[in-house]
Amino acid sequence: MMAGNLFVNVAHRLADEQIVELLSARNVRIERIVSTGHATAPGEWYDQDRAEWVLLLAGSAGLIVEGEAEPLVLEPGSYVHIAPHVRHRVAWTDPSVPTIWLAVHYQ
Amino acid sequence: MMAGNLFVNVAHRLADEQIVELLSARNVRIERIVSTGHATAPGEWYDQDRAEWVLLLAGSAGLIVEGEAEPLVLEPGSYVHIAPHVRHRVAWTDPSVPTIWLAVHYQ
Repeated sequence: MMAGNLFVNVAHRLADEQIVELLSARNVRIERIVSTGHATAPGEWYDQDRAEWVLLLAGSAGLIVEGEAEPLVLEPGSYVHIAPHVRHRVAWTDPSVPTIWLAVHYQ
Repeated sequence: MMAGNLFVNVAHRLADEQIVELLSARNVRIERIVSTGHATAPGEWYDQDRAEWVLLLAGSAGLIVEGEAEPLVLEPGSYVHIAPHVRHRVAWTDPSVPTIWLAVHYQ
């Protein structure tokens, strides 16, 4: 049995976003992502083959999803479903506290 | 796009556990579960065809997993993977505040 706690071992300053795989199965991958002020590089977009369900657990973030009128401001508890190949980017994450995401990639 | 916040519309007193489906796809179902002191009925066990990855977001709970020496005490951020047909039951949930779970069922 795999068990743990998402809120332990959270760095407050990271050179790069940290991605830790929590579950990897044929159809599903679950990750914890920690951002400390990181954003997607200017002009870059995520464009993924798999659908993604993402939940923000701590901190805050601005998410730009192509086709949405406004950036989404994500706070603890906020979740978003992103269909395959819907381009999206992280405009900002909280500069003062770690932002913790749970990402569920599936097909 | 489906978006929302897991921490809104949380009842503080429920006759039964409340299950809200957040995502339903062929291989994955994601639910929010709210417990207000609920436990699995004495002598009953969950025995599921699909694997489950469960995350406790608020409150606390005691989870008994068959084959584990000790009950697991789950606090905010605690996650557990439960393989198909591994019998388990909820011994208790926090009587004073709502316990919020995220359950990812997959095959």
